[in-house]
Amino acid sequence: MHFTSEQRLDDGVLEREFTLGEIPGTLWTPSSGSTPAPLILLGPPPLGLRKAYPRLLARARHAVAEGYAAAAIELPGSGERPRSAATDQARADLHRALQAGEPVTDDIVDRLILPLVDQAVPEWQATLDALLALPEIGGPVGYSGGVISIGTRLAVVEPRIAAAVLFAGSFVPRTIIEEARQVTIPLHVLLQWDDEGHHRQMSLDLFDAFGSKEKTLHANMGGHLGVPQHAGEAGSRFFARHLK
Amino acid sequence: MHFTSEQRLDDGVLEREFTLGEIPGTLWTPSSGSTPAPLILLGPPPLGLRKAYPRLLARARHAVAEGYAAAAIELPGSGERPRSAATDQARADLHRALQAGEPVTDDIVDRLILPLVDQAVPEWQATLDALLALPEIGGPVGYSGGVISIGTRLAVVEPRIAAAVLFAGSFVPRTIIEEARQVTIPLHVLLQWDDEGHHRQMSLDLFDAFGSKEKTLHANMGGHLGVPQHAGEAGSRFFARHLK
Repeated sequence: MHFTSEQRLDDGVLEREFTLGEIPGTLWTPSSGSTPAPLILLGPPPLGLRKAYPRLLARARHAVAEGYAAAAIELPGSGERPRSAATDQARADLHRALQAGEPVTDDIVDRLILPLVDQAVPEWQATLDALLALPEIGGPVGYSGGVISIGTRLAVVEPRIAAAVLFAGSFVPRTIIEEARQVTIPLHVLLQWDDEGHHRQMSLDLFDAFGSKEKTLHANMGGHLGVPQHAGEAGSRFFARHLK
Repeated sequence: MHFTSEQRLDDGVLEREFTLGEIPGTLWTPSSGSTPAPLILLGPPPLGLRKAYPRLLARARHAVAEGYAAAAIELPGSGERPRSAATDQARADLHRALQAGEPVTDDIVDRLILPLVDQAVPEWQATLDALLALPEIGGPVGYSGGVISIGTRLAVVEPRIAAAVLFAGSFVPRTIIEEARQVTIPLHVLLQWDDEGHHRQMSLDLFDAFGSKEKTLHANMGGHLGVPQHAGEAGSRFFARHLK
């Protein structure tokens, strides 16, 4: 992990960009602070760290104000990272099906999501290795948002993640719904009831499948970007119960 | 409205039992306080005010501590109120179907719930007339819990109710799901995902039908009585946003 820039923001947040191999990322920590902070991994949306920066920064500022460190890495195929022709094809097939009002087939969902999960999850694990080696970062670790299939696989394979706030904002392969039965950590799942993606039933099936004894679904009105402020605050309280 | 008893509880709560015609009820207000308080109507469970007293008192204490008055009335057919042979028959049919693992028919649900709604809703409205005439009670008014079909009808027909926390803990007639499209007030709906009543899909259909622009579904693990503490606190925050 190499830090490539460092900036002190005006509200006591230290923002550092880094690279881990070929993967760019950003780390936010308190400018001053002596004890190692618990960590929240901020799952980015697929539109890339740069375009998502304002929303990621708002989430990071909130996390740091609550006493956490926060970090995000670029997803495979997003931002400046090399694109995959197969994923681009799957995304084009998805948009064509949605625009034609046709059902989104399992095949399209699998081709769109599974390669992303297979590549992103080990990258998050390598990032976690590097972040937890920093003296200013301790544990426990929470995962928040991003592509819900990535968060689900991470919750299965990565024992250092103690709790997760998941955003049910994308299509979910059936194999991921099966994997979800192995998840046991506390989960807080956000669902936008009228999300333009029309994946509500998949999201409810996924929520039902999670093996966790403690899981909460918060569904709110509005589209993909319309998560109300009180829903974000409920996620913060969930982390406060499980990471502190 | 006639007050029949008055008791000062040790935490600054004044508890008064009353009758409104033949209907018994309880009112909880701050022991001291000069300005009229907003009011939360506590929908009781069908097991009767006396059996439900410990849980109702806990909800009332919480409401008064937050600055509200709170009141509950006995449901038709509950407690000492005269039972209905038709409702008893419907309840017996329901239990028989559940024990036999048979589907609960629309006919059973209609016979069990619709007469209760038809009778209880005007009773709540008369109670509201009487409560709002008291100098210590102002507005706005929230409705919380109880049988969700009663709360739904009340939200349609009673314009003095400004916001509602509804508990999706019972079967819902299809006609009530249709009425729900006329509801426009902010709603906060609690659902126990593994409720022994097995009415999850009806509850999701009802939530989907509500016409309110602001509606939130909070689903948690556990059975009918297993609502976690953080879910109750979320309901309090919802009322604080809409009744203060």
